[in-house]
Amino acid sequence: MNIGIIGGGSIGLLVSGFLSLKHNITIYVQREEQKNAINRNGLIIGERKTSRVRSLLINELSNEDCLIICVKQPQLKLLIPILHSLGDKIPLIFLQNGMGHIEFIKSLDKTIYVGIVEHGAIRKSDNRVLHTGKGLIRLATFKGHSNQLNDLLKALNVDDFPIKKSSHWKQLLSEKLVVNAVINPLTTLFGIKNRQINEDPHVNYLARQLCKEAATVLGMDVNEEWSKVKEIAKLTGDNTSSMLVDMNNKRETELEAITGYLLAHSNQDIPYTSFVYHSIKALERKNGIY
Amino acid sequence: MNIGIIGGGSIGLLVSGFLSLKHNITIYVQREEQKNAINRNGLIIGERKTSRVRSLLINELSNEDCLIICVKQPQLKLLIPILHSLGDKIPLIFLQNGMGHIEFIKSLDKTIYVGIVEHGAIRKSDNRVLHTGKGLIRLATFKGHSNQLNDLLKALNVDDFPIKKSSHWKQLLSEKLVVNAVINPLTTLFGIKNRQINEDPHVNYLARQLCKEAATVLGMDVNEEWSKVKEIAKLTGDNTSSMLVDMNNKRETELEAITGYLLAHSNQDIPYTSFVYHSIKALERKNGIY
Repeated sequence: MNIGIIGGGSIGLLVSGFLSLKHNITIYVQREEQKNAINRNGLIIGERKTSRVRSLLINELSNEDCLIICVKQPQLKLLIPILHSLGDKIPLIFLQNGMGHIEFIKSLDKTIYVGIVEHGAIRKSDNRVLHTGKGLIRLATFKGHSNQLNDLLKALNVDDFPIKKSSHWKQLLSEKLVVNAVINPLTTLFGIKNRQINEDPHVNYLARQLCKEAATVLGMDVNEEWSKVKEIAKLTGDNTSSMLVDMNNKRETELEAITGYLLAHSNQDIPYTSFVYHSIKALERKNGIY
Repeated sequence: MNIGIIGGGSIGLLVSGFLSLKHNITIYVQREEQKNAINRNGLIIGERKTSRVRSLLINELSNEDCLIICVKQPQLKLLIPILHSLGDKIPLIFLQNGMGHIEFIKSLDKTIYVGIVEHGAIRKSDNRVLHTGKGLIRLATFKGHSNQLNDLLKALNVDDFPIKKSSHWKQLLSEKLVVNAVINPLTTLFGIKNRQINEDPHVNYLARQLCKEAATVLGMDVNEEWSKVKEIAKLTGDNTSSMLVDMNNKRETELEAITGYLLAHSNQDIPYTSFVYHSIKALERKNGIY
C-alpha cells in the first residue's frame, strides 16, 4: 500500500518507520527543513535506517491508499480544510490524544478510524526517533463499516508493531483520556516523572481526585479507571510525560484536548480539573508559549 | 525596657534592630553560630549598625520585661515548654503568620498579644537584615486586659517603626490569613512574583477561588477580602513571597499554619485550598524538605 503519514513528530516517525517494512510511506511535514532531512538522510529508528520512506510538505498531499494523521490536536484544525478536499475513498486514521479532535472530525464525510498509541517514542532529530516503550496501537471505527477496519488491519499489520481492533471508539478514547487527564498535567505542574503519581502521597491524592472527576464526566467506573492510572504510571515510571516534554520544549501542550475537553463536557463543578487547567495555562504563559 | 526577641530570622532581626533604638534587646536564637555572629559583629539593619543588642541561645532564656516571639509557626511547638516555664508577669507577643499558633498559645496561662507584621524584610546573613518595605506592626489582645496593651504600646513605640493597636485579634489575623492563603501558595507553586496574582489571568482565576474559600471558612466578606488581596499583590508586586523564599531555600514553609489551618477548620469541601495544600507538600517533598 501507499500510506501517507501526516505529522513528523515522535509518533509520526515511529509509525512511518514500522509500516515502511511492508509499505511505501510518505511523511507529510510542515517544515521544509524536516522534509529535506528525511529525504537526504533517511528516516532512522534507533540505529536502524529505513527504506521506502520519503517526505513531502503537507500542502503537497496527493492520493494515498490510506492516511494516518499523527499531528497533535492543536495542529489539527489547520489540517481540516486539506482533509475535506481529499477523495472520499481514502480511509483516515486519527491518532490524537484526548477527545478534542472528535468535534473536528465529525464534520468530515469520510471513512474514519480513531485510535490510541501505547508506544513510547522520543524524537531525537528531524529524521531520527527512539522507540522507548513497546506497546500497541488500538483502532476503532468512528465512521464507516467495522469489517472494512478488519481488512485494513490485515493490510497494515507488521511484525513487532501490533495494531489491534477495539469495538467502541468512545470507550477506547475515554480510557486513554482519563489516564492522560491525570498523569499529564500533574507531572507537568510539578516537573516529575510518571512514577511519582504512585510514589508521592500528595501527588497521589491529587491524582485520585482528578481520576474521579474525569471518570465521572465520561460516565466510567472510578475504581476501575484508578487502577489503570496507577498501572500505567508504574509501567511508564521512568518516562517524562508528553505534556511535560512539550512544556520543557516551550511548545503548546495538549491541555485543551485533554483537560479542556473534560471542563467543556462536564455538567457539574470539577474543581481539581479546573485547577490543573488554569495551572498549566499559567505555566504556558510563564514560558512564553502563548 | 529589657526586651527578649525569640527567633533570629528576618522579622526577629528587624524588630530587634528598631526596638534597640530605645530598649535593651536580647535576641534568642537556635544556633551558636548566629549567636556568635551577632555578639561579635553586632546586628546590622541595611547599613546601620545597632547598639544595645546581644544574643543568647533559646535555652539561655532569662527574665525579660517583655518577650516577642518571631519564630515561624513550624518552630513554635519546640518553644512552648520553655514559655510555660516562664514567670506569669512577662507579657508575650506572638507575630506568626496564619492561625496555626492559636491552638498552641491557648494553653499558656500568660498575658498574650498577637500581631501581624506588614514590613518587608530579607535576612542577608546571621547578623544582617534589609528593610525592604516600610509598614506597620498591628497588635491585639489575645489574653489579658486591653488597657495593659495601651501601656505596652506606649513603651515600645519607636520613631519610624509604628506599632498600632487592633481591637479584635481574630479579625486581625483572619485578614492576614486570607491574603497569605492566596498569595503564598500560588506564587510558590508557579515560582512567580506577587504581581502575577493580578497580571496572569489564570493565576488570577485561581486566586479568586482561594480567596472565596478562605473568606468563607473564616466568615468574612468575599468581595472585601478579594479587594485587599489584589491591593496587597499590587503593593508588593516585586516581592518574592515568604513561602517561595522558604521553598527556594529548602526550608519548611508555613503551609500548615496558613492553608492547613483553613482545611482543618472548614466544615465543607474547599477543593482549591486542598489542591494547593497537596501541591506545596509535593514540592516540599521534591525539594527534600521533609
